[in-house]
Amino acid sequence: MTKGALALLIHGGTDNWSPDRWKGRFDAVCRDRRVILLPATGFEPAEIHYAAVWKPVPGELASFPNLKVIFNLGAGVDALMVDRTLPDAPLVRVAVDDLTSRMTEYVVLHVLMHHRQEHYLRDSQRVKRWAPKFQWPASAISVGIMGLGTLGTDAARVLRRIGFQVLGWSRTPRQVDGVACFHGREQIEPFLARTDMLVCLLPLTPDTRGVLNRAVFERLNRTSALGAPVLINAGRGGLQNEADILACLDDGTLGAVSLDVFMQEPLPPDSPFWTHPNVVLTPHNAADTDPDAISRYVAAQIARFEAGGALDNVVDRMRGY
Amino acid sequence: MTKGALALLIHGGTDNWSPDRWKGRFDAVCRDRRVILLPATGFEPAEIHYAAVWKPVPGELASFPNLKVIFNLGAGVDALMVDRTLPDAPLVRVAVDDLTSRMTEYVVLHVLMHHRQEHYLRDSQRVKRWAPKFQWPASAISVGIMGLGTLGTDAARVLRRIGFQVLGWSRTPRQVDGVACFHGREQIEPFLARTDMLVCLLPLTPDTRGVLNRAVFERLNRTSALGAPVLINAGRGGLQNEADILACLDDGTLGAVSLDVFMQEPLPPDSPFWTHPNVVLTPHNAADTDPDAISRYVAAQIARFEAGGALDNVVDRMRGY
Repeated sequence: MTKGALALLIHGGTDNWSPDRWKGRFDAVCRDRRVILLPATGFEPAEIHYAAVWKPVPGELASFPNLKVIFNLGAGVDALMVDRTLPDAPLVRVAVDDLTSRMTEYVVLHVLMHHRQEHYLRDSQRVKRWAPKFQWPASAISVGIMGLGTLGTDAARVLRRIGFQVLGWSRTPRQVDGVACFHGREQIEPFLARTDMLVCLLPLTPDTRGVLNRAVFERLNRTSALGAPVLINAGRGGLQNEADILACLDDGTLGAVSLDVFMQEPLPPDSPFWTHPNVVLTPHNAADTDPDAISRYVAAQIARFEAGGALDNVVDRMRGY
Repeated sequence: MTKGALALLIHGGTDNWSPDRWKGRFDAVCRDRRVILLPATGFEPAEIHYAAVWKPVPGELASFPNLKVIFNLGAGVDALMVDRTLPDAPLVRVAVDDLTSRMTEYVVLHVLMHHRQEHYLRDSQRVKRWAPKFQWPASAISVGIMGLGTLGTDAARVLRRIGFQVLGWSRTPRQVDGVACFHGREQIEPFLARTDMLVCLLPLTPDTRGVLNRAVFERLNRTSALGAPVLINAGRGGLQNEADILACLDDGTLGAVSLDVFMQEPLPPDSPFWTHPNVVLTPHNAADTDPDAISRYVAAQIARFEAGGALDNVVDRMRGY
């Protein structure tokens, strides 16, 4: 019997990983299975059993009558959840160690840059000023992580190892050794009140849209050793109220921010974020997807599924992640 | 019987910790002992049993006939070892957790900045360019640490946890879990050949002076995923040949450097390091001494010594650290 085909629906690839390069990787790991990069001709919709997608056009997946599993080629499925015609097949998101480690690299780097006064030190170098300022140790600074899934938990553990006080907040209760864990709406205030640096790794859902707003920033620790609180968002642009961030930077409610994601990407040239002196901006590359690791992950899940095993990391469509 | 006095000989304090502030800290932790900040009058040289020093003038310590222990207020004792009149009392260097953690913060920050293309990303923000380049994961990069004492070992462990390949080189054999350890002159070449990013945390001794030179840089891995190798020196300025570093940056033998220490400090305004585009410079603040932690460390060692216990972290004068 011929194995069901895998369709690739990839829109908005990165500069480095074009849809063609993704196809090359999937061909390499799905040797006895047909891999079809859409749009294409010469195939029957009915032969498609699996789809690996990145930002597919709404409606695109509805045309495959025998779809068994949909694989999203990243951790965030928010772009898929708006598709009201999305077939009812299990939707699997990526949770590979490679993506987790990359996000931890990003979070640790940006926490340390703000903690270690990199902004002041680069300015000092520019004006040839040899003038160290008092440097607090990590143990004097608290980092609060919103979102304690795979990514948030790993970042929390490494920050703890480096010496920071680490707090976490999640929708439902979680436990991480050495991390003060809070959950639910009723515990958001005590979490924020003890947080000097707020790191957001939440999924984007109707519940979390716009959660990074003035009301939240105003509740962060006002007596932090950092001076004013810091925000680091490596989740999704839709989590942040961008007008509030800019206003809070300007009135001192926030001291500095690192943003990897934006409401509109690429960030338009007229965005004030580009030139704001207290904004550290990265072009949504905190945790690049590695086609090598991800294609192997998808192929392994298909093999397990066809052998009668369970799928990992299936999205709960009610909660949206 | 009156307890022997503690003399403080502190030259070149930091902006934040003047000799007076150090005296305040020592007064607080040595409550029933006289603490004398030199220069001073109204005391007998014979009543000085202990000295806590930072860059004392050669000869200064020789005037105390009853000196029992000399405490250096930092990890590096190179400034003391040039004093040919240094009394024969045990010389203790600082090894407090606080100093170790601060150095690990610095090393992890600078490794991650080079690894995560911070130079390119800040340039991109300046010119409003949204153009992520391929980002290797930490697992594709090797960090080689010269010096596997307290500081090097802690940094190695955290870098390993973040996902880097970590190598270490030390004068005598060491073992650190997950770290490829090399030692001695005969193993320096294989260590360098596998190193993409070289981190130097060696003590400054006659053996290590100028060890960071062209011959070493040319032996680093020429096929690194980083492009050209990177140097991070947070040891002492005397470890580096500064003319070689500049020439190697200019001819591509080195891709970038982070330097916290220099032959002459403060770095003179006409040094080319200030303005070189591939130099990340910090004003010798990688691991600030925390007078709180250090004064407690000295007081605890004196108490143990007077109760007949052994001193920790006594410098071996033959090897120089």
